[in-house]
Amino acid sequence: MNNYFFSDIIEGGIITLDKAESNHCIKVLRKLNGDKINVVDGTGKLYVGKIINDDKFQCQVEIEEIIEKNKNKENYIHVAISPTKNHDRIDWFIEKAVEIGVDEISFIKCERTLRKKIKINRLTRIAITAIKQSLKAQLPKLNDIVTFNEFLNKNQNNIGYICHLEEGNRTNLFSLGLKEKKNFILIGPEGDFSSNEIKLARSNNIRSISLGESRLRTETAGVVACHLLNLKNNG
Amino acid sequence: MNNYFFSDIIEGGIITLDKAESNHCIKVLRKLNGDKINVVDGTGKLYVGKIINDDKFQCQVEIEEIIEKNKNKENYIHVAISPTKNHDRIDWFIEKAVEIGVDEISFIKCERTLRKKIKINRLTRIAITAIKQSLKAQLPKLNDIVTFNEFLNKNQNNIGYICHLEEGNRTNLFSLGLKEKKNFILIGPEGDFSSNEIKLARSNNIRSISLGESRLRTETAGVVACHLLNLKNNG
Repeated sequence: MNNYFFSDIIEGGIITLDKAESNHCIKVLRKLNGDKINVVDGTGKLYVGKIINDDKFQCQVEIEEIIEKNKNKENYIHVAISPTKNHDRIDWFIEKAVEIGVDEISFIKCERTLRKKIKINRLTRIAITAIKQSLKAQLPKLNDIVTFNEFLNKNQNNIGYICHLEEGNRTNLFSLGLKEKKNFILIGPEGDFSSNEIKLARSNNIRSISLGESRLRTETAGVVACHLLNLKNNG
Repeated sequence: MNNYFFSDIIEGGIITLDKAESNHCIKVLRKLNGDKINVVDGTGKLYVGKIINDDKFQCQVEIEEIIEKNKNKENYIHVAISPTKNHDRIDWFIEKAVEIGVDEISFIKCERTLRKKIKINRLTRIAITAIKQSLKAQLPKLNDIVTFNEFLNKNQNNIGYICHLEEGNRTNLFSLGLKEKKNFILIGPEGDFSSNEIKLARSNNIRSISLGESRLRTETAGVVACHLLNLKNNG
């Protein structure tokens, strides 16, 4: 089966793999000088290259071909989500969102958010493993946590949608046109957005949406939203 | 916020909660005699009742109203999946499939399946927690592991679909009509179904499908399949 390696150390047509990737390539998979491997750098480029230094600490690869992936993508998928109390559920959300397809993930601190900090380095590592696993070339942008208000202020020029459980007029995300290039979807904490937050969103022209009949946990809602938006991209 | 309790001990209009559920209701949530609670029994019925014995080991509830849920469901969603090597990923699949909506889950032992046994009692407990969490009344049927061949033999009268990565003519699950009442979707192990298994499936009139562009892990494919079938149910 196909394998992708990750590196962002690229200079003069030569890619250098870091210690962990070199070890995996040379020691675990027993690749040798002359073997061809695939490397992604997280910006959407896939490099096909030949190993010219099979060092298990610092493997080097000569680039032979560069393939631009993601050229046919229509929408930009940006999910802004409240972190869950349980860390595993955030990790899981990152892994699954990346596997299914996401361009940007923001974390938002809402009134009912119980976790106020996230570990962006750890989440980046999970995202890198997930792009390699799912043969993607683009690493999504991960933004550190800001308050709900700060997020709205920063994103005033983009079209936004908010998923909440409050009664009233909510359109199903699946039935929306969503052909704008830049939009974002807000996913709230366990216990939902507060009434004040929903009001503030409305006064910022953010549309209320639902993700269907089921009551979903925060991280499941995030993954379902990514999946729906991907269906729209490919449909 | 709404809460569901689970019990299948119902006799003469009285529901008895087991020790864990009684403790949660009486000790954690501090409910008292006369308080109204919602109980589901896993068969699709939601009972609204009044506590008549606020015992923290054996709480009793008098039924006042029975609501039939799931009346408008069109398709029956049956996912037959190879267990993953890592137990957490199976647990996670059960939780998310139930949250999103599934009627039956079967486990299949394929040529490349690394885990040969599953813990059906543990998975049932996870499914019960998930129906309570997502306010569902129906507990999906969970079937213990059988071989791929046994599964096909047992399900010869149902319409089947197989998700695999082999090149060739594969229809996207999302574009299928799928209006048959009884169908099942086969999801393979890490490393995919073997060529022999795919051939055997074809000779049993099982149609090859894909779940989209991304290469998904086993448990992610299972969840994405549930989500696609649910979209069809509600669409």
